Amino acid sequence: MEKKNLLVIKIGGNVIDNEENLCNFLEDFSAISQHKILIHGGGKIATKIGEQSGIQSKYINGRRITDDAAIDLVTMVYGGLVNKKIVASLQSLHCNAIGLTGADGNIIPAVKRPVKEIDFGWVGDVDTHKINTAVLDTLLQNRITPVFAPLTHDGSSHMLNTNADTIASSLAVALSEKYKVRLIYCFEKKGVLENVADESSVIRFINKQIYKTLLSQGKLFEGIIPKIDNAFAAIDAGVNQVVIGAAEKLLQNCAGETDGTLISA
Amino acid sequence: MEKKNLLVIKIGGNVIDNEENLCNFLEDFSAISQHKILIHGGGKIATKIGEQSGIQSKYINGRRITDDAAIDLVTMVYGGLVNKKIVASLQSLHCNAIGLTGADGNIIPAVKRPVKEIDFGWVGDVDTHKINTAVLDTLLQNRITPVFAPLTHDGSSHMLNTNADTIASSLAVALSEKYKVRLIYCFEKKGVLENVADESSVIRFINKQIYKTLLSQGKLFEGIIPKIDNAFAAIDAGVNQVVIGAAEKLLQNCAGETDGTLISA
Repeated sequence: MEKKNLLVIKIGGNVIDNEENLCNFLEDFSAISQHKILIHGGGKIATKIGEQSGIQSKYINGRRITDDAAIDLVTMVYGGLVNKKIVASLQSLHCNAIGLTGADGNIIPAVKRPVKEIDFGWVGDVDTHKINTAVLDTLLQNRITPVFAPLTHDGSSHMLNTNADTIASSLAVALSEKYKVRLIYCFEKKGVLENVADESSVIRFINKQIYKTLLSQGKLFEGIIPKIDNAFAAIDAGVNQVVIGAAEKLLQNCAGETDGTLISA
Repeated sequence: MEKKNLLVIKIGGNVIDNEENLCNFLEDFSAISQHKILIHGGGKIATKIGEQSGIQSKYINGRRITDDAAIDLVTMVYGGLVNKKIVASLQSLHCNAIGLTGADGNIIPAVKRPVKEIDFGWVGDVDTHKINTAVLDTLLQNRITPVFAPLTHDGSSHMLNTNADTIASSLAVALSEKYKVRLIYCFEKKGVLENVADESSVIRFINKQIYKTLLSQGKLFEGIIPKIDNAFAAIDAGVNQVVIGAAEKLLQNCAGETDGTLISA
C-alpha cells in the first residue's frame, strides 16, 4: 500500500511572536488538506512573562539552564498559553487541532540530558525509536491535527524543555515508517541562500552532491550548516524531503513546488 | 450490547493545592482499571501566579470577572502548568493520560456567557448536546485517559474559563449515551452530611424520595443543595450515578461500595 503524505511543520519565534505573521501562517496551515502536524517553539513571550513574574533566565557559559522555576514557566507558557491560543485559532479556521506535549499520550518520552560539563537542568533529549506513533496515527486517521509544544517528559513525573527542531525531526522520522513525510522548517529567511545578504539568492534544491559542492566552495552561511546537516540526518533516517524557508511562502504550494529550499537525498 | 462503565471524576482546589493530597489521589486514580476521565479545577495557584505577574483578579458585585489578562493567566496555569503536571505524574504511574482543554479536538464548544447585569468576560457556558464525544470515545477505546483543564473555547479563537463541575457533568451526560457513567465529585467533606459539624454523619444514599424528605426536614447544609440539584440534573439527563465525597476515600472502592454519598434516581 502506498504511504499517505504527511507534513510535519515547525514554526519558531519569528512566526509566533508576531500576531499578524501567526494569523497568516495559521490560515495557510489550516487550508492544507493533507495530514499535518505542527510543532511550535516558544518565542519571546516566556522571557517576557518570566520577567513579569520575577523569574529570570539563568545561563552558564552562555547556555540557557532550565531550573525548577524555568520548567514551570515554559510548561505554562509554551504548553498552556501559546499552544492553546494556536489550537483555538485553528479551530476557528475549521482545522480540528489538538494541543499536545510529549507527555500527553506518552508520545515523546525523553531523558533528562546527562550532566557533563554543564547541568542544563530540566532539558530533554529524545530517542526517536521510543516515540509512540500509535496515538498520533489514530489522531491523524480521525482527521485531527496534532499541535506540539516543545516539551517532553522523563516518565518520572517531570516535564522537560526540548528543542522544537528536535521534536519536529524526531516526529518526522518516527512517522516516516507509515507516512511519506515532508518535514518543513519555517525560519526567518526565504531558504538556504547562496549569498546571505541577498534574499533572492535562494538555492531551490540541495542533494548530497550539491551540498558537498556548496561546502567546498565555502558559499554557505555558517548558521545554516547545522540545519542542513540535521535535514540530511532526517532524510537518512526515513524522511522523504525537508524544506527550509519562510513561513509566508512555504505553505501556499505545499503539495508541489515550494518557494524555499527543497532538500532530498 | 451492554454499555461499558466509565468514571468521570472531578477534583478541585483541596486536592490540587496540596501536593501530598494530589499524589495520593493520582495514585488511587491511576490504579482504576475502568475507563476514566479526570477534570481538574484550578486551585489557588492561578491567583498566586497572577499576583506575582501583577495580574489582579477583578470582581464585580463579588463575582470574579475573566478579562483578557485573566483568560491568558488561567490558560497558562490551568491548561499548561496544572494540567501537564498531572499528566506527567499519571504517566509516571503508568496511566496513559492526555491533557486537554475543551478547545482540543473541539471536544467542548461553548458560548461566551451573554451579558445581562454583569459582563463576566471570557467565561464559557456549555451546551451538552454540542460536545464531540467521538474523539473522547476514540481515546478511551485506545486506553488513553483524558485529563481536562476547566477551559473551553468559543469557536472564534477565544479560550473561555469554564466551571470544572460544569465540564464534569457535561462530559458525563454527553458520554452517557455510550457508557454507563458514574460521575464523582471530590470535595472537602466526606459526603453529604446530616450534621454539617459531624464528619461521621455522611448520608450514604440519596434518591429523589430521600432528598425530598431531607429538604422538608431542613437538615441539609445550604451549600450542598446546588450540588445535589446538579447531581439529579445529570442523572435525569442519562448519568447512572453520582457520588459526592472526599478524594482520599472515594476511589479505593470505585467499582462497588464507596465512602461518600451515592446519589441515584
